[in-house]
Amino acid sequence: MMKRKFSLQCPMPETDFDLVTLGHGSGGRLTNQLLDKGIFSIFKADELQKRDDGAVITLNGPVAFTTDSFVISPIFFPGSNIGELAVNGTVNDLAMCGAVPRYMSLSLIIEEGLKIEDLWEILAAIKISCEQSGVEIVTGDTKVVEKGKGDQIFINTTGIGEILPGARLDTSRIKEGDTIILSGQMATHGISIMTVREGLSFESDILSDTRPLHEMTIDLIRQFGHDIKLLRDPTRGGVATVLNEIAVKQKSGIELIDDTFPLDPQVNAACEILGLDPLYVANEGIFIAVVSLNAADRIVDRLRKFSAGKNAAVIGSVSQDHPGKVIVRSGYGGKRVVGMLAGDQLPRIC
Amino acid sequence: MMKRKFSLQCPMPETDFDLVTLGHGSGGRLTNQLLDKGIFSIFKADELQKRDDGAVITLNGPVAFTTDSFVISPIFFPGSNIGELAVNGTVNDLAMCGAVPRYMSLSLIIEEGLKIEDLWEILAAIKISCEQSGVEIVTGDTKVVEKGKGDQIFINTTGIGEILPGARLDTSRIKEGDTIILSGQMATHGISIMTVREGLSFESDILSDTRPLHEMTIDLIRQFGHDIKLLRDPTRGGVATVLNEIAVKQKSGIELIDDTFPLDPQVNAACEILGLDPLYVANEGIFIAVVSLNAADRIVDRLRKFSAGKNAAVIGSVSQDHPGKVIVRSGYGGKRVVGMLAGDQLPRIC
Repeated sequence: MMKRKFSLQCPMPETDFDLVTLGHGSGGRLTNQLLDKGIFSIFKADELQKRDDGAVITLNGPVAFTTDSFVISPIFFPGSNIGELAVNGTVNDLAMCGAVPRYMSLSLIIEEGLKIEDLWEILAAIKISCEQSGVEIVTGDTKVVEKGKGDQIFINTTGIGEILPGARLDTSRIKEGDTIILSGQMATHGISIMTVREGLSFESDILSDTRPLHEMTIDLIRQFGHDIKLLRDPTRGGVATVLNEIAVKQKSGIELIDDTFPLDPQVNAACEILGLDPLYVANEGIFIAVVSLNAADRIVDRLRKFSAGKNAAVIGSVSQDHPGKVIVRSGYGGKRVVGMLAGDQLPRIC
Repeated sequence: MMKRKFSLQCPMPETDFDLVTLGHGSGGRLTNQLLDKGIFSIFKADELQKRDDGAVITLNGPVAFTTDSFVISPIFFPGSNIGELAVNGTVNDLAMCGAVPRYMSLSLIIEEGLKIEDLWEILAAIKISCEQSGVEIVTGDTKVVEKGKGDQIFINTTGIGEILPGARLDTSRIKEGDTIILSGQMATHGISIMTVREGLSFESDILSDTRPLHEMTIDLIRQFGHDIKLLRDPTRGGVATVLNEIAVKQKSGIELIDDTFPLDPQVNAACEILGLDPLYVANEGIFIAVVSLNAADRIVDRLRKFSAGKNAAVIGSVSQDHPGKVIVRSGYGGKRVVGMLAGDQLPRIC
């Protein structure tokens, strides 16, 4: 696991301090030192550099507005860190609303004693991820809590994006016969974190699938417009929980076909070892699309043109039977009900 | 200190659970139970009730966008709690941008074991404060961390407000001769928290001054337009730190007159006991306005018509002398330089 991958591209400036202290959260001179070195030297948006109490941005028409606080443990994990996750997570929530991501706020709650080089690696990940997704950090906040009153760092990102003119996303448009597509392999993020926590090792590391999804969702909306009825990224609670939410809200049944789930063999093996059903494991780099039946095959073909969509597949459909429930049919004709995640399978997965 | 003041106006629904558990953060069934009882039963905006990944809102023209994470300790303090503080804090940052507060996101990081009745009291405070300020919670997030990895609750609020057409707030418009007005008594919030932490008692409780300031700032902008050059709420770091930031950014001097500071006698006494300079103590319910000299008296008169502005006063002016520095002149002709807050005087004050 290469911990310093982002700061290799974005080297750390010299600082007089190695650790974040309580004084860095006081709002006074030390806070300004930390912000000068850590925030204003890396995030360059004019509105942020003004250092006002907020940013002034100009928006026209409908926008998506979404927030997430990231508390993942560990903060460095195979393939990435909490900083990239925090940007991609909010970018993806905007994408799922049918929006083009534009602006983001960044709020840090740092535990006293965090190493500055760890903070920098996280900030570098945030910077590089923002650039990849075309979003700008325009306002922010930094707080410090005493040792033992936090856990290294928690990050809130809140995003604003412009809704695409052709977006017609609305759960109430879902009807019997609609097709459910998964954009890629499931359970990868959750299993990546669990293998670290449990000390499991495989032939190769299972890397988190955190990635921005907006390029795919923007393309789908532009190409298929009203045939795209709902987009959801199945993070906490996994695919099963999102589908249950849709089934309950829409009073429809959902039928899945067991042998069509895109799933990496190593991830599948890890799920078996850990006794986890991959349908409940958290994801960060895939989405569920509920689409019109007549466009489904073309949508899957289109997704497969993206490297992040190469494993896209139809996984099921909306049915008039068993309203409010999600059913999985196996290749052998059996079926089982898949409820919502009941307990606390994977705390602090995002 | 009356802890249950908000839930008296907004009674708690029955729940099957008394404490927040890790499972409530899993994203599955328990999360939905907590959200049903705790969020969706109290915050009623249509966009929130849709339970999508984000809210879709329509905005036109320039908007203010601001974020703050609140980590105050203790979460219940004289006169209020972290919930009201989190709403007012973000409302006020929008107000300081010259905006009318409109929309807010709400993100909770809860430590396992938080009492549901405490959570409810905080949510009730958020609801009532939002109503007072005319803002709607339209999107949110809830995370739970293990006991010992947080501190009861941290709250992020991120706000969007519409910039008033007449607002001309811009630090670069500040010039020599401009007047500095304080809208009310200073140091009240910080001293309120400190007296609790230090176990000091006075004839009457010193209550936090947390309150929304947007009514006053909107009125000032409407009445005095371009004569209002800058608005700032001096929270962490206090009045001295904000004025230093302005002096440094604008390369101007700032001169304050010692015997004009609005200050409650009990707060002043507490500052003396605690050895604190009130200029550095955090505030939540006042703002600094930098205004044209010719409008200053009328602005003070106008502010004094508001109950929250009844102690408004001119506290100083912008000078061409000692650029980048803040000087206080005493009634006896002495003067001293007031720098930026240097250390960690009051950690976790907001």
